[in-house]
Parts: sequence; C-alpha cells; structure tokens
Amino acid sequence: MNEKNTPKGFLFSTAEAAIKKPGRKDLALIYSQKEAVVAGMFTTNKVKAAPVKLDMKRIMSGEGRAIIVNSGNANACTGKQGLDDAKEMAELIAKGLNIKSSLVYVASTGVIGTPMPMERIRNSIPSLIQDIGKASIDDVARAIMTTDTFPKIVSKKIKIGKSICTVSGICKGAGMICPNMATMLCFVLSDISINKDALSRALKESVELSFNRLTIDGDMSTNDTVIVMANRIAGNKPVLYGSDEYIKFSKTLIQITDELARMIARDGEGATKFVEVSVKEATSVADAKKAALIVANSNLVKTAIFGNDANWGRIMAALGYSGIKMRENKVDIFFNKIQVVKDGIASGNDKEAGEELKKKDIKITIKLKLGKASANIYTCDLTEDYVKINAEYRT
Amino acid sequence: MNEKNTPKGFLFSTAEAAIKKPGRKDLALIYSQKEAVVAGMFTTNKVKAAPVKLDMKRIMSGEGRAIIVNSGNANACTGKQGLDDAKEMAELIAKGLNIKSSLVYVASTGVIGTPMPMERIRNSIPSLIQDIGKASIDDVARAIMTTDTFPKIVSKKIKIGKSICTVSGICKGAGMICPNMATMLCFVLSDISINKDALSRALKESVELSFNRLTIDGDMSTNDTVIVMANRIAGNKPVLYGSDEYIKFSKTLIQITDELARMIARDGEGATKFVEVSVKEATSVADAKKAALIVANSNLVKTAIFGNDANWGRIMAALGYSGIKMRENKVDIFFNKIQVVKDGIASGNDKEAGEELKKKDIKITIKLKLGKASANIYTCDLTEDYVKINAEYRT
Repeated sequence: MNEKNTPKGFLFSTAEAAIKKPGRKDLALIYSQKEAVVAGMFTTNKVKAAPVKLDMKRIMSGEGRAIIVNSGNANACTGKQGLDDAKEMAELIAKGLNIKSSLVYVASTGVIGTPMPMERIRNSIPSLIQDIGKASIDDVARAIMTTDTFPKIVSKKIKIGKSICTVSGICKGAGMICPNMATMLCFVLSDISINKDALSRALKESVELSFNRLTIDGDMSTNDTVIVMANRIAGNKPVLYGSDEYIKFSKTLIQITDELARMIARDGEGATKFVEVSVKEATSVADAKKAALIVANSNLVKTAIFGNDANWGRIMAALGYSGIKMRENKVDIFFNKIQVVKDGIASGNDKEAGEELKKKDIKITIKLKLGKASANIYTCDLTEDYVKINAEYRT
Repeated sequence: MNEKNTPKGFLFSTAEAAIKKPGRKDLALIYSQKEAVVAGMFTTNKVKAAPVKLDMKRIMSGEGRAIIVNSGNANACTGKQGLDDAKEMAELIAKGLNIKSSLVYVASTGVIGTPMPMERIRNSIPSLIQDIGKASIDDVARAIMTTDTFPKIVSKKIKIGKSICTVSGICKGAGMICPNMATMLCFVLSDISINKDALSRALKESVELSFNRLTIDGDMSTNDTVIVMANRIAGNKPVLYGSDEYIKFSKTLIQITDELARMIARDGEGATKFVEVSVKEATSVADAKKAALIVANSNLVKTAIFGNDANWGRIMAALGYSGIKMRENKVDIFFNKIQVVKDGIASGNDKEAGEELKKKDIKITIKLKLGKASANIYTCDLTEDYVKINAEYRT
C-alpha cells in the first residue's frame, strides 16, 4: 500500500517472537501519536480469550493509544495465567512507549489452550518499541496472518469539511469464521476527529453488514476482535452522530469492512471460490439471513460448488430444514444469472450452470417469493485443502 | 445374514433398473405375506420427497403389505410429476401382488431434483414381482445403498410368551445426515403380533434414542424414512403398550436402531473413525444434547480428529458458541480415557491423547460440572474423502 494511504499519526512495527515457530514476523504494534477515540466489538462466544476479556473492560473508556497483536497463539483457555500474560504484554508496551497501560489493547490469534511463550514475547518487545515507525500498515497486516494466504487491507479517503481524512482497515481471517462475529481480528485506523458515540454506532452498523454476514465453516472463535481508532489528526470539526458527515464516514466504514469481509471469504481456508448467497423476497430479514446462513454453512452445498456441480437439490434441502417460512413450489434458484430452479423444480439448466460454476465468483440467488425482505451472506467452497489445513493445523 | 434371522412371512426381491447408472441392483421389494401393522417416522424437512408425502398419508391407516425402495434418485423437488410417479410405483406393485395400492409404501434415496426414470422402473417391476422370495433381506440392504460402503443389518430374537419373534432392521445412511431425523432409509421387519399404538410408540422412542442422536454433516435430507412392519406370524398374544412384553420389544427395537445408527456413523461419507460425543453434568438434557450436537457438527473438531490432533481448544470454542449454560473454568474434556482439559485449561496430555486418537473408536467426554443431565451423539471425522465424494456425487 502506498504510504499516502496510511492515516496520519499512526506508527507501526513488527517483530519475530517465534510464538508458534520461527521464520516470520508474528508480533506487531500499532501506535497512535495522539490519544485516539476507540470503539470495539468482540466475540459473543462464551469462551473468550484472555486479551478479549482485557479489551472489553478497557474499551469502556473509549480511549486508546496502542494495540499489540500476535499470531500463533490465541491465549484462550489459558486461565488466570493467560489474563496475567495479556496484561503484562500491555504493560510492557505502555512502559516502552511511556503511556498509560489502560490505553493499550491486546489481540491474539492462533492455537487455543497453549500458554503464551512469554519469555520470547518479553524479549521481542524492546525491538518492537525501538523499531516503531519502521514498519508499514501492510507489514502489520502480514504479521497477523495465520492460515491466510494474502494480507488484507482496504483504505479510503473522505473529505470532512475542508479536511481529507484517511480510513484504513486491516484484518485476518481464514478459518473458524462464523457470524456474531466473523472470527477474525480487524483493526480500522483513521485520522478523523469523531465523537465517541458516533464512532461506536458506525462500527456496530458496519460490522452487522459485513463481518456478521460472513461464514467460512460455521465455527465461531474465542478471539474475534474489531477495534477502530480515530486520532483526530486530520483536524476536521468532530463528527457527531446523525450528521451528514457521520453518514459519509459510516458509509466509508461499511465499504471498508464489506471489502475486508469479502477478502476473508475469498481467502477461506482451502477455498477456490468466493460465494455470495443472496436470499430475496423472504417474509422477514431474520428469515432471509437465517436461510442464507444455513445454505452458506451447508457442507453439501459447499462441496458441490467446489466440484462445479449445480446440485441445487442440496440448496432446496437446506432451505427446507432452515426453519424459515418457505413454500417449496415457489422457490427460484440462480447460479449467477443462470436459473436452475423455477417454482421448486428443475429449469433444465444444470449443465450450463455447471460450466458457470467454474468461475471464481459465484452468486447463489434464492427467491422465496413470499415477501420483500432480503439478506446476503459471504462464504467460500469447501475443499479437500480445508480438511488438510485443519487436520494438520497444530503440527 | 443367516436366513433363520429373517422374520417369518417376509419375502424379498431386487432388480437392476439403472436408475442412476447401470451395474447394480437399485430397486427392491419387501413383501409381507400377511397384512402387517405398520408405523413410520419421516423427515421434518419442509421440503419433502414425493414418496415421503405419499407414505405420510398412507401410514395413518397403520396397515401395510409391501415397500418398494429405490436408490439412485430421491424423487424430491420433482413437483406433481414426482407424486404421480411415486403413486404409479405403488400401483404397479399392488397390481403385480394383487393387493390394495394403499398398502404399498414407497421409499427413494439418491439425487434430488431429477425426474424418476419411470420407463426403466416400469420395465423392472415385472421381474421384481416374479422374483419375489428369491432375494434375502441382505440383498435389499445392499440395493438401498448410495454412498454407503457396507450394507447395514441388525437382527434380534425375543421370546414373547411361548413364541420366538424375530426383529430385523436394515438401513442406509452415509451422507446428508442430521438428527430429526438422521437422513436415511430404515426398515424394521418383525413377525411379532403387536398393537398399532404400541408399535408406533416403541418406534418413536427408539428413533429419539438412536437416529435422532446421529449427525454426519449437519445436512438434513428430504427423504428420511423409518418404517416398521409387524406381520403377526409369530403367533404371540398381541403386545399392548405398557406391558412387560412391550418393554421387552421396545428395548430390542432400541438396541437395533442404536446399532444401525452406530453403523451409519462408522460409515459416514469418507469417515475413518467412529466418534461418540458424550456431554455430562449439564443443567438439562436439552442443553447436553445441543452441546454434543454442536461439537459433533463442528468441522474444525472433526478435521482435528481426522488428523489425530487432540486440539481440544476447538471443542471449548464450540461449547462457547453453542448457547448452552456453561462455565469455562469448570469444563473437563477427555478423549477416550485421557483427560486433556481440567477446569477449562490444559491437562498437558495432548501428545498422549494424539496417540489415542489414532484408534478407530473415539469417545469425547465433556463434563460441564453444573448439573446431572447427559446426552450422547454419534458422528464421524471429516476427511478429504468426504469432500471428494460430495464434490463428485452427481458425476
């Protein structure tokens, strides 16, 4: 990414702490030169990683200066020791940067249930502090990857009053991805000046429309974290909730998280295809979302797409057990623009649709023809590589 | 199976109708020489196959004489034509056997959404009729296989009064298996004399404790059918609900369906291992069942087991998002007898547990330590072969 696309006043560094194994940067620091307004959303899993527990308390203040992130170890199911370790990571960063520890957030991703290798982390923190400013936001995106195959970063500029503000998001995804929230770490940084309440509402809305519309494997993680920091350096008049500027910012945030969510789906573990499931003409948005999610989580649908097989019967079966309001003889189904089901039965285009499925971008459109509500879910196909990656994950 | 293990008064035949492709018997007939008491349970999927719709009406009478079964085509999502085809199949059998059409049940399994190849079926029915008695119950179990790798049959004898009664069950499973009910066809035949109400209640109880405790891939099919026929030929005094004889019969039926359910799990598509998830000390049976089911349906748990990786963190994560009452720091987890989690954190036995996972029979025991309720779910591991089988199913 062009440096010009990085929001003003943020500095970065990365280090190799060999958390899971040596050979790559697995520790990263995000630092705002000025105190920032902060909002966050976290996993709704009852089993929460230690850093999530820590951040959920700290974020109540709405303020922050730094985030330390590691890959390779989730620091989840690690008991009291895990909490102590997360606190110590924040503490060491706070001392090194000479800021209050309560302004430091911690995010971890990786294996569950293994204690953090604190000695190696302690040894790496001095270089993280010393090197601050030497890394780019791209380097951070790379350091937080686990089974991701490419770094995920989206950046936009918006004009607020006379000020040009930059909003940049990075995230990691790949596996253990299911809505509420999608399993992942995501950090959005901006130099915009925005009121705390406005930032928090904009984040909530954008997550609902992006990461909460994403599933890779139906498994929800213990570590999902989205943190947004806005450090005011762009110098605009503070954006308030409900204003025109708010709407502008909110739209930009939605665009960024939507693009990141699509990237996560495209880079699902072992995925060869990006799949969007769009349910239309349902009786309620809740039904549309539920149906889209059940189709998107069906192993049988996902393997058929991997095999370029327009096996729409599996979609009909999934709709049937989804529990939503539906009438079999009203359902229409399309793979991209090719209709395979009309009024619940075959349209006779399976062969043509099978050819269409060879594309890398598949949109499954399901029309229930009962109402006016719709919802979309992003996912990917299920491949032999998904199994291979997850059978060998800890080895 | 020894012929002596077949209930008296049932005759069988099979034929090759090349429904999906030639080369195997894919049509079977079960015929009771005497009118039988019949009970059935069917898929709760809103999208029901034509034969399911037909059978659900006919079974209200509680009477039956014959079942025609085919593999290779599910006759689901086939509209009015599908219903006409199912009716015609029953009609042709009824004419050939000179019985009432309403006493003939139809069961189909295979591809969804493709019209039945009725010409080939019509041509095969005369030989089905002519050959009645030439096939064994084993041959029928073989003819109803789709992606199953072995036929599934369980037979028991019980003494009711002075009569020896035989109860034999056959089923097919393999994929699209999820409770309520497990996706499959199952036929239980007996020469016992039993009251209609008693038969129906015994079936319901046994299905709840067996097929409804089974998941392969979380996908519920459109065709699930369990039919039990009792033709009274053993000559015992009719068994009434609640009697000692009822309890004896009910226990036998539970044993049979439980063994069949375990066979289905062991023969899950691509499976290398039988997995039983046992949740104990939950606050309610509903919670215990829900938790066991969510763990059993987790792709991440199932791939870890395939990879002999005692990655219990994925089980903790699944428990956390299951929505049940749980306290992270109370959970104990065992792989067979090896404890991997104590009070929510590692017991340090992952390596030993990894060795244990190389076995073909894995029991995951989860103690929530909150109450006294428990539940078990049967499943299997998730392998690259599952993906391969389902990516190529229709080709």
